[in-house]
Amino acid sequence: MLNRDLVKVVIFDTFGTVVDWRSSVATEGKSAAHSIGLTEFDGDAFADAWRAGYHPKMKEVRDGKRPWTTNDVLHRERLEEIIPDFGLDKLENPAREDLNRAWHRLNPWPDSVAGISRLKNRFVVSTFSNGSLGLLVNMSKNAGLPWDAILCSDVFRAFKPAAECYLGAIDLLGGEPQSIMLCAAHNYDLSRGRKFGMQTAYVNRPTEYGPDQTTDLKADQDWEIVATSIEEVADRMDC
Amino acid sequence: MLNRDLVKVVIFDTFGTVVDWRSSVATEGKSAAHSIGLTEFDGDAFADAWRAGYHPKMKEVRDGKRPWTTNDVLHRERLEEIIPDFGLDKLENPAREDLNRAWHRLNPWPDSVAGISRLKNRFVVSTFSNGSLGLLVNMSKNAGLPWDAILCSDVFRAFKPAAECYLGAIDLLGGEPQSIMLCAAHNYDLSRGRKFGMQTAYVNRPTEYGPDQTTDLKADQDWEIVATSIEEVADRMDC
Repeated sequence: MLNRDLVKVVIFDTFGTVVDWRSSVATEGKSAAHSIGLTEFDGDAFADAWRAGYHPKMKEVRDGKRPWTTNDVLHRERLEEIIPDFGLDKLENPAREDLNRAWHRLNPWPDSVAGISRLKNRFVVSTFSNGSLGLLVNMSKNAGLPWDAILCSDVFRAFKPAAECYLGAIDLLGGEPQSIMLCAAHNYDLSRGRKFGMQTAYVNRPTEYGPDQTTDLKADQDWEIVATSIEEVADRMDC
Repeated sequence: MLNRDLVKVVIFDTFGTVVDWRSSVATEGKSAAHSIGLTEFDGDAFADAWRAGYHPKMKEVRDGKRPWTTNDVLHRERLEEIIPDFGLDKLENPAREDLNRAWHRLNPWPDSVAGISRLKNRFVVSTFSNGSLGLLVNMSKNAGLPWDAILCSDVFRAFKPAAECYLGAIDLLGGEPQSIMLCAAHNYDLSRGRKFGMQTAYVNRPTEYGPDQTTDLKADQDWEIVATSIEEVADRMDC
């Protein structure tokens, strides 16, 4: 049950919850394709293929099969894997580097900046993301996301859902799990946050993975807050 | 020599450079003393004595004589050491805890918020501090310091001047040392930054340690910028 008075900090999953990675990456993929004369290009499929490498690669790190590797590097590796499938072989190295930075320029959902700005008036607001620190700083600057802090995988040297991330955030933010509200569009993330004692806010993002999304279409537990936007979370938190 | 066009990020030493720890801690010490009926209390001496424990305790961690310990804990240890000397034994535990959080409520120098806000329009601005992450987040929120990121000892699990801090910041912020300008009131800090390839800005804070300060009264190298305020750094950076 929501205990609003205990909350001091609201931390946010970022990819999917705060920013719309799919349409942003699709657009940047199309631009890159056009730059080498490819006019027929399925940007959505490209974004999906790129993203499909995300969880398996982080899992390799989590499982100790490879040493700590920041997400920027994992994104780049995956880009190299899918370049042949999408006919992008002619992209020169600087263009590939720039395309990899599409993840630094993701667009927020329409309610994100307003909702986070309202919450910031009363609470500390921070990312809680598997993204790289530089990526998140650049993204936030670009999108006008007014974070008080950037907590992310580079700080914990671990990827969610590893316990280190949740315990690390609690420790860094003062040691009281219930003083932290985790806001995410992903039930698995909230379930881990709750396990470690955080309060939870689910934001429904039914098109994060496009029109045929099959997961996270609704809250699968009685999260402290269930909302359809971050503005609605701000409403519920009396901000 | 200053190469303004290369700079993407300005990172700031915090205690002394951005905030005036001495007068803030002196005031809070006096309040605590008054709360237990002590009317004669030398707040400045109290602040100096507390701060005097800072570098030796960090050095124990840096030298591997004790495991990683966040600065909040080191502050609290030092407080306990000096409590008898200042007649504060009657302070109850919650009051001691609150007094320790004086370091979360330090006041900025008069030029800090304006100078950092101007630099933020053109550059990423971040702390680069030996303080704890929670401490810096609370301090920034309290003082209105508009950081894009909080880089600090808790992130590097090391205290300046350990190499891990400088190399860690460079790595997290994109890997190009010259793209980072380190702004500090302490020559030793800038000298380390320069060693690792950062550009440097010295801000003179001749009363950080009170009227009888003997160190860091002037720039001791040809730092890329030498200024008397963060607003002057913003001037030099065309912000």
